Amino acid sequence: MSVIAITDVLAGKYPVNEEITVHGWIRTRRDSKAGISFLAIHDGSCFDTIQAIAPNELNNYQTEILKLTAGASVKVTGILVESPGDGQSFEIQATAVEVLGFVEDPDTYPMAAKRHSIEFLREHAHLRPRTNIGGAVTRVRNCLAQAVHRFMHSKGYYWISTPLITGSDCEGAGEMFRVSTLDMENLPRTEKGDIDYSEDFFGKETFLTVSGQLNVETYCSALSKVYTFGPTFRAENSNTSRHLAEFWMVEPEIAFADLGDAATLAEEMLKYVFSALLEERADDMAFFQQRVDKTVIDRLNAVINSDFVRMDYTDAIEILENCGKTFENPVSWGVDLNSEHERYLAEEHVGGPVVLQNYPKDIKSFYMRLNDDGKTVAAMDILAPGIGEIVGGSQREERLDVLDARMKEMDLDPADYSWYRDLRRYGTVPHSGFGLGFERLVAYATGMQNVRDVIPFPRTPKNAAY
Amino acid sequence: MSVIAITDVLAGKYPVNEEITVHGWIRTRRDSKAGISFLAIHDGSCFDTIQAIAPNELNNYQTEILKLTAGASVKVTGILVESPGDGQSFEIQATAVEVLGFVEDPDTYPMAAKRHSIEFLREHAHLRPRTNIGGAVTRVRNCLAQAVHRFMHSKGYYWISTPLITGSDCEGAGEMFRVSTLDMENLPRTEKGDIDYSEDFFGKETFLTVSGQLNVETYCSALSKVYTFGPTFRAENSNTSRHLAEFWMVEPEIAFADLGDAATLAEEMLKYVFSALLEERADDMAFFQQRVDKTVIDRLNAVINSDFVRMDYTDAIEILENCGKTFENPVSWGVDLNSEHERYLAEEHVGGPVVLQNYPKDIKSFYMRLNDDGKTVAAMDILAPGIGEIVGGSQREERLDVLDARMKEMDLDPADYSWYRDLRRYGTVPHSGFGLGFERLVAYATGMQNVRDVIPFPRTPKNAAY
Repeated sequence: MSVIAITDVLAGKYPVNEEITVHGWIRTRRDSKAGISFLAIHDGSCFDTIQAIAPNELNNYQTEILKLTAGASVKVTGILVESPGDGQSFEIQATAVEVLGFVEDPDTYPMAAKRHSIEFLREHAHLRPRTNIGGAVTRVRNCLAQAVHRFMHSKGYYWISTPLITGSDCEGAGEMFRVSTLDMENLPRTEKGDIDYSEDFFGKETFLTVSGQLNVETYCSALSKVYTFGPTFRAENSNTSRHLAEFWMVEPEIAFADLGDAATLAEEMLKYVFSALLEERADDMAFFQQRVDKTVIDRLNAVINSDFVRMDYTDAIEILENCGKTFENPVSWGVDLNSEHERYLAEEHVGGPVVLQNYPKDIKSFYMRLNDDGKTVAAMDILAPGIGEIVGGSQREERLDVLDARMKEMDLDPADYSWYRDLRRYGTVPHSGFGLGFERLVAYATGMQNVRDVIPFPRTPKNAAY
Repeated sequence: MSVIAITDVLAGKYPVNEEITVHGWIRTRRDSKAGISFLAIHDGSCFDTIQAIAPNELNNYQTEILKLTAGASVKVTGILVESPGDGQSFEIQATAVEVLGFVEDPDTYPMAAKRHSIEFLREHAHLRPRTNIGGAVTRVRNCLAQAVHRFMHSKGYYWISTPLITGSDCEGAGEMFRVSTLDMENLPRTEKGDIDYSEDFFGKETFLTVSGQLNVETYCSALSKVYTFGPTFRAENSNTSRHLAEFWMVEPEIAFADLGDAATLAEEMLKYVFSALLEERADDMAFFQQRVDKTVIDRLNAVINSDFVRMDYTDAIEILENCGKTFENPVSWGVDLNSEHERYLAEEHVGGPVVLQNYPKDIKSFYMRLNDDGKTVAAMDILAPGIGEIVGGSQREERLDVLDARMKEMDLDPADYSWYRDLRRYGTVPHSGFGLGFERLVAYATGMQNVRDVIPFPRTPKNAAY
């Protein structure tokens, strides 16, 4: 069978006054006194439903059609006609309504046709894509993901699938999930009495990665322009609207590029994907604008049409110190900025996206390139009005001696990073990159307040349902 | 800085007789007696190198240029000219060669310019993308991944990121990796003395998923056409050329679709991605044809130009029983087929791809739709000449009573699958899907014999390096 998508029918891709068959689920059923039922049918291909008009002459009208409730699945055949009413442009005058599946006990069906709280939907993650908001989030998420790949591909970047399971000791095991097949009830022991990880599946301790960056740098040092787009993991006990234990990240890495190049790529990417979203998912974005966040489309257009201001951390501190505003967390040179500071800079001082750069080295990672002042590193965060940090990146330290010195300063053992050091020993090149949290991007683009609502099955402390 | 890609230079996108600057790594250096050095420079943007001609008048000719070895990084400025010789169409008459990074101790550099065994490269996974074969695999892998997304997107499918960490008990925990943050040296215990997983990060036992299928079915039951493309995990102790502990899978799921529709989508997808590959990566495919597998391009063209034969399992058994060939593993109705049988069918009997379908229910999963004969299920495998099984799929059991009966037959507890059963309780629809192992696809498309060589950092028993 070849199934027709409702989005194509509504777009006028099928001839009127001819027979057509659509498949989908009932959103609403309305019966007229004249013995006609109006069925609003969705199939997820777009935000809107198509209306099918079922007359009481249909032989299953009394036995089945009048029993259709929200969520029931149907196959509707009929004549496609132009719709006389407002709203949709086309509707179907049904000649047959086949019920594929009723809803068992409609009174207890969790997704009955009414407004549900976002928390209620989260607890029914397997059914929430059936709702208006769940479908819209899914289509927007897909649109942004496709746009990311398309943008990177068009720029000549190669997608690299860096490993999820990592045996590297280098990334702060405290926040990592252990991956193991050891029998927890009978842990093998060494002669000394320690757990013998040589007996584990990979022959050593392994964890879920927190970032593909170090791995993808190896491919950058060969293919020049690369990126990852895959899941990453943090075992942080953070119950906030911005944290997930499992989330997706986009991490481009660019050879022969400095910090400014990375910021430019991030700016171009954000503008590209937001433009694609407004163009391709106008239906869903109209819904988010109306029901979730009245400013969301304006906000995206503001990003698209602005030049991202670049500002040094040092200047930002001065602005914050002299702005006359009292912050909960006081600022001075050397401190990490809080959300309140980031939002002040983006929303009040600049009134648009800000690339904040050249942070004190002591609050940043070992691999970030030391600036000539010896005090700051070539790191940047992009702060967006309404959300704060959306991108974090840096130029990487390509000088082996400086890298080694930084590692020692931070009590890291260069021997643990031998393959990473090899990139600096063999044909090292200046290179830069950034990470973009994909769920934060989707949340920002939709106005959804919690990243748990923009990923199908969120993983958070004490929750791995489904 | 805006870096020019060598692929664009070789494609004639820049004007000749004008100055140009390229960045990259030395593949070879050849010095003429006349005091000129020929540098072959690659940047990973394509298979080919560009030649830069460095005359001994350059002021660092003796001190640096003559010391350049394979893997050193350079920035070369010069005049782009048409190449008089065979091979490349353009070359650069260098006016400046800036060395960005030498190779420390070239004699021990693992990727020195000579042919390396594939096993040697595997042991230097962080450097192998610098080789001809490593770069070619990376570009082909990217091309196929982009083509998969593009194909699905063009067909109206939505990409769904199903979870990697799963709390579902339903998928054969024996082959799964445990994910935990419990302190292995001080495991919390319940009053009864069992390990207390309520103290673990997610409040229960969790594992890495072996497939996104059951999860993505929830989105199929709302958005109609969906797919996953993400990592999956198997803790199988299989040291074969076809198995990885961490691998990527493409899993489309189609509502209102039967087994034949799933097979058609798989056939169309394979043809689309192979066509894209031959068109977009002719350079890399010529290399694979020449150096890895003399038949690889013919084989892909044969797939593109064939109609996939559809054959019932029952007929296949009869063919195998009567073909006059002695198999290592004897066949009879009810047994699972081995690679030798699959290859006979595809390579000798049909001479092309085969969709083998309707397998005995006892060798297949509980969720596959029971056929009317009560003995077989609507499952299919696509067998390709030269590799065997490349796709496995099925129509899913959409009838709740039949699903429940099958679960009981297989000693599964329906209570463990309550959310999966909900899809059948609320507006159930016929639906089908398949899984395509992405590394097997890349191996098939390149002629590479081992899936470990087509993923950047392979994870296999006793190996999680990097």
